[in-house]
Amino acid sequence: MASDSRTNAGVDYISTYRKMFDLSLPGERSIIICNSGSLSVSQGVLTRVNRDIQAQEAKNLHTIGNMYDIAQYIGNKSREIQEQDRPWLEKDGIDYSCNFLLGGQIKGEEPQLYLIYPQGNFIQATPETPFLQIGETKYGKPILDRTISYETPIEDVAKCALLSLDSTMKSNISVGPPINLVMYEANSFEMNNKLELRIGAPYIAKIRKLWEQSVRHAFESMPDIEWIQDLNDSEEDIFLD
Amino acid sequence: MASDSRTNAGVDYISTYRKMFDLSLPGERSIIICNSGSLSVSQGVLTRVNRDIQAQEAKNLHTIGNMYDIAQYIGNKSREIQEQDRPWLEKDGIDYSCNFLLGGQIKGEEPQLYLIYPQGNFIQATPETPFLQIGETKYGKPILDRTISYETPIEDVAKCALLSLDSTMKSNISVGPPINLVMYEANSFEMNNKLELRIGAPYIAKIRKLWEQSVRHAFESMPDIEWIQDLNDSEEDIFLD
Repeated sequence: MASDSRTNAGVDYISTYRKMFDLSLPGERSIIICNSGSLSVSQGVLTRVNRDIQAQEAKNLHTIGNMYDIAQYIGNKSREIQEQDRPWLEKDGIDYSCNFLLGGQIKGEEPQLYLIYPQGNFIQATPETPFLQIGETKYGKPILDRTISYETPIEDVAKCALLSLDSTMKSNISVGPPINLVMYEANSFEMNNKLELRIGAPYIAKIRKLWEQSVRHAFESMPDIEWIQDLNDSEEDIFLD
Repeated sequence: MASDSRTNAGVDYISTYRKMFDLSLPGERSIIICNSGSLSVSQGVLTRVNRDIQAQEAKNLHTIGNMYDIAQYIGNKSREIQEQDRPWLEKDGIDYSCNFLLGGQIKGEEPQLYLIYPQGNFIQATPETPFLQIGETKYGKPILDRTISYETPIEDVAKCALLSLDSTMKSNISVGPPINLVMYEANSFEMNNKLELRIGAPYIAKIRKLWEQSVRHAFESMPDIEWIQDLNDSEEDIFLD
């Protein structure tokens, strides 16, 4: 899983907030949550989720028996906060929607990945569509669509996630570093591979340069376009004939 | 300039409409208009623009003295139709917004490229930002951001425009063939280089394959990620410490 850290309240108020949280119980369950959208709602959800763990509530992230029920639990937290804040935010036309990614594994289950919608309902990644995105998804989707399948080696997937985020950062200033990245190996129940790439991180600079070279090389190596020289061959002039 | 041809009224009603129109007066002025957004508004604008040419109105696309005034003229046509239809469309919450690209050259002027907003106001491309996009812009923007500068050779720009549209088609079913492409050479006042690429066009298949290979090769050649192995080195566990 990979996330950026930029939050904005309009272009004139940009700040940095982590959007990836490790809520694992090492050895037992590995749980990563990423968020996008309304910062007040998503912070509220994460604080309440964590409070339940600290208070050892009967139902918390470390006791709920399976990932499906955890997705529902997070969706319900989001609904709780919306019930409380929504009328006030709606009055001023403020977007309070917020999405979550929930990924990881509980002992006895396969690894799973969920996307929890602002309405609290959720979907799961499948072999046919093995990745999920939230937030500013479009700039980075083409690179994922071209490269990620269920069979892609996990190290390649991690690189591709970085490239996808880097493409998005390049095209949209509302997405920015640090980038957080975790790579979870199934059945390890440890989050051994994690990374935070800050502004100017040499690795980011390196992959950006390599990627730009590849993109340039790709279109330079494209076969020349065979233009239609004779205007009359075209069906184009539908207005001027 | 490049455009796709897919129009939809919801995912259950997809159809094909050309979105690029050659309204040149060969030898005198080269004018290409592309549209996105509401089909009824943009068809209306193009019909009225063309009707003025046919009727030899004093002020039409072949008589207006400069590109800036043509941009204003198209913006005004868009406003006319909106004035007429807007109350009816607003009643049912229908999006009637529509954008235009206007590109070309009038004798005595430099080539110019404008983007006309749904409100009828407009901006012009400049050396710092030499390309403009309308419609489903995000999927195809990273590739343009990485490759297009004011100095890029025009044949490379044309290839890049195709790749950008192809990336968008791959990620969004509301964008689809045929793709129309024109490449105008400054001071030629002829539209000699044009192309319509239909579904299954070998050139599209070829560049898609080449591009996918390049993308794969790019991330395979990326240096391996240097993971942080020790969880305690990370500042991540802000909730669980």
